[in-house]
Amino acid sequence: MTDAPASVSNDGGALRVLVWNEGVHERRNEPPTMERDYPQGIHGAIADALEARLPGARIATATLADPEHGLVESVLEQTDVLLWWGHVAHDEVSDEVVARVQRHVLAGMGFVVLHSGHHSKPFRALMGTTCNLRWRNAGERELVWTVDPTHPIARGIPSPIVIPAQEMYGEQFDIPKPDDLVFVSSFAGGEVFRSGATWTRGRGRIFYFSPGDQEYPVYRQAEIGDVLANGVRWVAQPDVPRAVVPVENPAEGWFAGA
Amino acid sequence: MTDAPASVSNDGGALRVLVWNEGVHERRNEPPTMERDYPQGIHGAIADALEARLPGARIATATLADPEHGLVESVLEQTDVLLWWGHVAHDEVSDEVVARVQRHVLAGMGFVVLHSGHHSKPFRALMGTTCNLRWRNAGERELVWTVDPTHPIARGIPSPIVIPAQEMYGEQFDIPKPDDLVFVSSFAGGEVFRSGATWTRGRGRIFYFSPGDQEYPVYRQAEIGDVLANGVRWVAQPDVPRAVVPVENPAEGWFAGA
Amino acid sequence: MTDAPASVSNDGGALRVLVWNEGVHERRNEPPTMERDYPQGIHGAIADALEARLPGARIATATLADPEHGLVESVLEQTDVLLWWGHVAHDEVSDEVVARVQRHVLAGMGFVVLHSGHHSKPFRALMGTTCNLRWRNAGERELVWTVDPTHPIARGIPSPIVIPAQEMYGEQFDIPKPDDLVFVSSFAGGEVFRSGATWTRGRGRIFYFSPGDQEYPVYRQAEIGDVLANGVRWVAQPDVPRAVVPVENPAEGWFAGA
Amino acid sequence: MTDAPASVSNDGGALRVLVWNEGVHERRNEPPTMERDYPQGIHGAIADALEARLPGARIATATLADPEHGLVESVLEQTDVLLWWGHVAHDEVSDEVVARVQRHVLAGMGFVVLHSGHHSKPFRALMGTTCNLRWRNAGERELVWTVDPTHPIARGIPSPIVIPAQEMYGEQFDIPKPDDLVFVSSFAGGEVFRSGATWTRGRGRIFYFSPGDQEYPVYRQAEIGDVLANGVRWVAQPDVPRAVVPVENPAEGWFAGA
Repeated sequence: MTDAPASVSNDGGALRVLVWNEGVHERRNEPPTMERDYPQGIHGAIADALEARLPGARIATATLADPEHGLVESVLEQTDVLLWWGHVAHDEVSDEVVARVQRHVLAGMGFVVLHSGHHSKPFRALMGTTCNLRWRNAGERELVWTVDPTHPIARGIPSPIVIPAQEMYGEQFDIPKPDDLVFVSSFAGGEVFRSGATWTRGRGRIFYFSPGDQEYPVYRQAEIGDVLANGVRWVAQPDVPRAVVPVENPAEGWFAGA
Repeated sequence: MTDAPASVSNDGGALRVLVWNEGVHERRNEPPTMERDYPQGIHGAIADALEARLPGARIATATLADPEHGLVESVLEQTDVLLWWGHVAHDEVSDEVVARVQRHVLAGMGFVVLHSGHHSKPFRALMGTTCNLRWRNAGERELVWTVDPTHPIARGIPSPIVIPAQEMYGEQFDIPKPDDLVFVSSFAGGEVFRSGATWTRGRGRIFYFSPGDQEYPVYRQAEIGDVLANGVRWVAQPDVPRAVVPVENPAEGWFAGA
Repeated sequence: MTDAPASVSNDGGALRVLVWNEGVHERRNEPPTMERDYPQGIHGAIADALEARLPGARIATATLADPEHGLVESVLEQTDVLLWWGHVAHDEVSDEVVARVQRHVLAGMGFVVLHSGHHSKPFRALMGTTCNLRWRNAGERELVWTVDPTHPIARGIPSPIVIPAQEMYGEQFDIPKPDDLVFVSSFAGGEVFRSGATWTRGRGRIFYFSPGDQEYPVYRQAEIGDVLANGVRWVAQPDVPRAVVPVENPAEGWFAGA
Repeated sequence: MTDAPASVSNDGGALRVLVWNEGVHERRNEPPTMERDYPQGIHGAIADALEARLPGARIATATLADPEHGLVESVLEQTDVLLWWGHVAHDEVSDEVVARVQRHVLAGMGFVVLHSGHHSKPFRALMGTTCNLRWRNAGERELVWTVDPTHPIARGIPSPIVIPAQEMYGEQFDIPKPDDLVFVSSFAGGEVFRSGATWTRGRGRIFYFSPGDQEYPVYRQAEIGDVLANGVRWVAQPDVPRAVVPVENPAEGWFAGA
């Protein structure tokens, strides 16, 4: 991993958000509800939700099929927050792009990882664990409870959020201990899940949020959009120069007499 | 708060455990199921569970009605781990005894707080928060899920533990962020709860575990006994001298040339 | 502890900051450098530093000698952030006022605790520990290093801050594990200290920052003022209704079939 | 990353420890003090220190030059704790071996990473960050202070440990927030460093400890050996079956009526 350019920063302008989606369910129209629930794709629905809540922000999208998945160096340099949705094509993401994304997160880019993105290569590289979990697709009711009411991501969010039908994700979720555990979900079948969690890595901030799936119109639910917007605001550090923590080798210290 | 004696320690002998119970439900036989579920009192059932699992340990009990609630200085000095069950008589615990318990915990005594003990004076004094929570007594099924499989308290514990009927405790639970979050529960009614959590305070270790109630025979369930025994083992530091972190005012440092 | 009024909030106006100082060193002019270093008192110097950095904020001060130490209910209701400096008169702060301050912090008021305030009653009540530490007053050079570069309190702060002369505070510092450890200091004599740390308690945010003393003009150093202003911004939640986490007892849940 | 065998466990026998050293300084006799300070190699000195303190344990060593660096699958399956020392040849460690080590740590093998091993491939893979730091090789006095007196790794360790001459490692150290911060060091030149820290990843436990270098006989210092032995004991989970957290897809839940 080489260092990011020493200084890439937002010149005081609009927040620059990039919604990345592998976009495979959309191309295959699979499940067949995709066309109804996500006519502009999952990324389109997420972008819409953010645009409605982040006035002035510039929201762009990119997918796996774009050259270098739409994640070339110059694009990441101009991105304050990257959101990531992937599911069936994690292995098709090139390792070079993964290393680039990881480097930018460590250098200060915000990173919001969604639902089945728990198994995406960049998230696993940043976590260091398998990110395995328990799951069942039975259209269960999910309740998303706030456990950290002081966290900015929870601000204005009702507790619980009631999601009428959703894929179940349950513990054991193989992640490092979160810096902040914001939300914990229960499912009708009885499982629990740490559904909203944050970490810092290097100079970057990461938010994982599990609700949202190709089969259920969760990203069109108002409270979910509110959480996504709060998450984007929290991971964004547009005024922080983009650079990884350096290796330093100073000859001088504060030795007595020096 | 004055300092504990500089050195109170277990001379290599048996682990000394004290199960404290306010003992009011027992005296009132209220609910009427007490006599059937807890013929020796809640403290008796807990002591039995520990005796069966901690061979060689010396298990004693004490209640609110004892002189100074059975928690005089000489008893605490000879206690490696104190378990605390209270519910309807928190206010009757004297502030002097609370300060004594807090001092011993900060000086290294292990402290296991059970169920409605979340509102006990010593727990609140150690946490610094209200320890308020959400509750409903409807005999709901509780599932206790392990979220930290590396924690010694989770060793050998099935995930989930299924408790057929229990009082519901739910979030928001107003506690400081746990050092380790070991268990998270769900209830049939949909709530979630951080049901097993640990903290260190001073030189002491604290474990809070919510399952267990006067109305349900939870403490006689095998897996619950296993958790209690693991908890006692984890908070116990019998070989650590009993003393709070001191104020120190050394004249000397490691100044260059000194 | 009774609940705070259910809803006390800032109606979108200026940030309201209250700098509390026991004010005893000032009255005694002890040490004699007080007059030169802090002609308006330590609280005056802190208020000046904040006014220069928080345009639009309303900065007030209060001292031990004021009626109820200047901390009556109506004042705290109108305070977004309380800063606390105390040293020789901790015991003179009334327990009633301490309980009031604790309740407001748990209900959402920001709390910044400075230097010898580590032994103040409200900080100890919120931490639950002795807050003891190691100290030596020898005018040593302190270096304040950033260990969490993603924390908003560290934004724009050089690492290290060099404080030419300061009282040494060293480990063991008997505090609960911080939620975020922002700064760690070293001293010329070799000690280290967790000099900048944050916690959340209830719905409130707390920042402890150790640099600053009655004998050294630390609060007039530019970088220290920057940290204080960052700390005030971080603990402030002016738009969050002021209320402790409630006890809730809902009859209804999300029972299947209900 | 494929799953580890579902069940590899210690059949109640001796603790099995493997000390891994790249062994390049030894082959080159560089610095020339190697022969004097570490006649059996750095791994030899560490193995000696552990043997003296862990009676009954089986201590083995391996180096980069061994086939597959001595870290073939059958060896790791029979290893409860792996210690890692590397410095100038991190890049020569094969990626296949790195993935194997990472998998075994996530499946429950203890991992102790030493000094310049902060930049080793397995540590970086498990942390997800650059693990960059500040350094200066000037033979400075290091003081290692305990900040968490309740941690088993700190048991019996004096605070501070005084290391007369050592390479300086300083903040910013680019690691994820430790689960437990056990030791913080200061150096004669004024820098500070989080020199002893733990994390859990998957089902495994990790301890990083910075003191120790090819140029200074630190591993022959008694207190350092004590820390290493405490660290080995703490990361060891010989009775825990070796398996990563699985993906599970249960059809059944605890649905009401089911």
